[in-house]
Amino acid sequence: MKPVFQNYLEEHREKHLGELFELLSLPSVSSLSEHKDDTQRAAEWVAHSLRQLGMENVALYPTAGHPVVYGEWLKAEGKPTVLIYGHYDVQPVDPLHLWETDPFEPQIRNEAIYARGSSDDKGQVFMHIKALEAILQTTGTLPFNFKFLIEGEEEVGSPNLPAFVEEYRELLKADVIMISDTSMLDEDRPTVCYGVRGLAGFQLDVKGPKRDLHSGLYGGAVQNPIHALVEILQSFRNEAGVITVDGFYDRVVPVTDEERAAFQSLNMTEESLKEEVGVKELFGEQGYSHLERTWVRPTLEINGIYGGFEGEGIKTVLPSEAHAKITCRLVPDQDPEEILELLQEHVKKNTPPGVEVNITLFDKGTPYVTPFEHPAIQAAGRAYEKVFGVPTAFTRGGGSLPIITTLDEVLKAPIVLMGFGLPTDQVHSPNEHFKLKNYDKGLLTICHYWYELEEAMK
Amino acid sequence: MKPVFQNYLEEHREKHLGELFELLSLPSVSSLSEHKDDTQRAAEWVAHSLRQLGMENVALYPTAGHPVVYGEWLKAEGKPTVLIYGHYDVQPVDPLHLWETDPFEPQIRNEAIYARGSSDDKGQVFMHIKALEAILQTTGTLPFNFKFLIEGEEEVGSPNLPAFVEEYRELLKADVIMISDTSMLDEDRPTVCYGVRGLAGFQLDVKGPKRDLHSGLYGGAVQNPIHALVEILQSFRNEAGVITVDGFYDRVVPVTDEERAAFQSLNMTEESLKEEVGVKELFGEQGYSHLERTWVRPTLEINGIYGGFEGEGIKTVLPSEAHAKITCRLVPDQDPEEILELLQEHVKKNTPPGVEVNITLFDKGTPYVTPFEHPAIQAAGRAYEKVFGVPTAFTRGGGSLPIITTLDEVLKAPIVLMGFGLPTDQVHSPNEHFKLKNYDKGLLTICHYWYELEEAMK
Repeated sequence: MKPVFQNYLEEHREKHLGELFELLSLPSVSSLSEHKDDTQRAAEWVAHSLRQLGMENVALYPTAGHPVVYGEWLKAEGKPTVLIYGHYDVQPVDPLHLWETDPFEPQIRNEAIYARGSSDDKGQVFMHIKALEAILQTTGTLPFNFKFLIEGEEEVGSPNLPAFVEEYRELLKADVIMISDTSMLDEDRPTVCYGVRGLAGFQLDVKGPKRDLHSGLYGGAVQNPIHALVEILQSFRNEAGVITVDGFYDRVVPVTDEERAAFQSLNMTEESLKEEVGVKELFGEQGYSHLERTWVRPTLEINGIYGGFEGEGIKTVLPSEAHAKITCRLVPDQDPEEILELLQEHVKKNTPPGVEVNITLFDKGTPYVTPFEHPAIQAAGRAYEKVFGVPTAFTRGGGSLPIITTLDEVLKAPIVLMGFGLPTDQVHSPNEHFKLKNYDKGLLTICHYWYELEEAMK
Repeated sequence: MKPVFQNYLEEHREKHLGELFELLSLPSVSSLSEHKDDTQRAAEWVAHSLRQLGMENVALYPTAGHPVVYGEWLKAEGKPTVLIYGHYDVQPVDPLHLWETDPFEPQIRNEAIYARGSSDDKGQVFMHIKALEAILQTTGTLPFNFKFLIEGEEEVGSPNLPAFVEEYRELLKADVIMISDTSMLDEDRPTVCYGVRGLAGFQLDVKGPKRDLHSGLYGGAVQNPIHALVEILQSFRNEAGVITVDGFYDRVVPVTDEERAAFQSLNMTEESLKEEVGVKELFGEQGYSHLERTWVRPTLEINGIYGGFEGEGIKTVLPSEAHAKITCRLVPDQDPEEILELLQEHVKKNTPPGVEVNITLFDKGTPYVTPFEHPAIQAAGRAYEKVFGVPTAFTRGGGSLPIITTLDEVLKAPIVLMGFGLPTDQVHSPNEHFKLKNYDKGLLTICHYWYELEEAMK
């Protein structure tokens, strides 16, 4: 017999999708100041939806940036409390011309919802609201007390959330923290992620001559900031894919044989990755598998580079500036501030003559790993299996959720990362989408999880 | 007593400047397709001005790109023929926000004409027209037969002019070729340039994964095209500023002791260059002075680089592509096509795994040196001295005039490079300008030159 929440979800499917499309239509790009009002509107939309669900004390808490949305339901007397974290902001959409349909005009095609934020993370936030609605509407109550903490700055590294969590630690107090902002390995492999890498995001600015110069008249005699930038960037990595910044690996906890074996058992081949991303050869740190490289090893990646002429044709210019954007993914026990210092030291040593270089920390998040054996983690595995009918994979994530460390350190509660996205969702890329199958099964999995967790915590 | 042409030029100064402003107002940016019509209008303006001067058979010759303007005055029976070459197209203007006034709204301030093309090369083309007008209007004749060849594609490497010159070699036949598209060393140092470097302009395109990837999920396991581009670019040059492409220097004619001594006598210090461009240190090929580096040594310069995210904030993307624009300045006896082959070979050897790289030749010009002792060169030195009252410097230029080789090879006439711009004119940069002093003295110098040359060729 179907659980009652399942009937409810099936009956209200059209209505719910309509609501989700409203949220996805709001271009809440947190990094761009021109979208400040849109981002505010998305916060208000989430607050409205929480009130409709029956949450109380729903409010937008202002921050130095975009507001935090909070709401609570504390009528399960004597029961533990769950805090659900998510974010209503999204990544920028450029290059816009590569989108098949407007990123903020959601559309269903190929059995998927196409829109910026459909997978990361509006779709998954919305599922948590609707899962609780289904349980509350069909049973009149919820198995736990619930609190929602939905922020608007995840895509810019959550600069204001740590202070907010510190200030409101009593308000946010919880026994379990739930986050759905990671991916499943593939659509038939439900996945509990028990660790994520940290992040340190930098901008490198190289300044040379005080104005752009004619490269024919000055080239060869004056240091070219692009050449200097290239020289510095190249000094970060060697031919074996090893980061050559002194001390970069000093605090890295080595991969254990058990972890290596567990990753191998997932049977995720290099071939399937090559095919997925469309390359003939992979490249990464020597001595590690592609899973180890993305899950348990730190990286230094250039996300953007620019300087000089980018237009049609050529322009014989020796530009006065060149820039790069860099992110390091960090693993336990690396620390973003220390990595900044190491990079600053390295840049100082590797700056060629004739330019001045500045490196700025934009963005940071400390790496985190949840104890694999925790009942809240194991219950998640069971909930997935009930809905997907296959064993759950336990992984460590490649991406970073900068807020995880703060939640862990301040609230001291185990964190469950239960993601419903797929690696192919093109999050952060053109044509982001979220499979309807994952949306539907995800909703059911969340409902089951609350009952599995209730059982486990008895 | 003032020569009659000088009186004429003084009397008509306001009128002439007004005409020049008309030409400078036309945004004839040859590299940008959106300015195709503007470029055509500039061609028509030059043709109109040549007809007004009294030139005959004035016409716009269509090419695969922008038209060539031709006009002739062949009434000096039995006298030699001079071909005056110049260009009516200009460089792009970006970054536009750095211009103090609109690049196509000419303005006089600080005793200079501010506008894109004021120095390179509309201003100097205009001076040749007005110098002949002054002589013709005051004496009723000219000391030589004259032909004008004013093209519209110099700033994109003159792709169509070689074929045009070949086809019309009879029409263009001349005994001396005059070009004013180089600089004086400074405003009190008139300069005859007896050689210019060649050019080979490339675009490097690096392709990695088939779509942009999330750098947190894939970074470390998939080759990042920006990293790959950086690795390739870095491989072009070593720490001593030496180009490390195999065979790059093989055909370079070494600097002679006489040339070194001549350059040293110019007393152009490193200090003044540092101050001019605003850097604390210079950088260039070890073992050569800054003049040798820009005049007689070949270079490889990155003019632009782009890939990934360039916006405000950060975006954790591993982009699918990265690009660079590169120009090599070449000296005798290097050959652009051969340099392309060497670079292709080098890129092949230095491409890291996981990406595909393409290098395309955009643009080329063979290096050229005029015999220093030629009477047409020496007459130029005397004409400058008459007007400026100081000895003329004889130099080799750093920039490239791709068409010079063609003119030399097809028309087999000595080429006189008599420039009136200054290194501080900011050609190819924001706030390009042309000093009024150089404009006025330049006009007189050109008039004197024709009489000096008449004397020398008797």
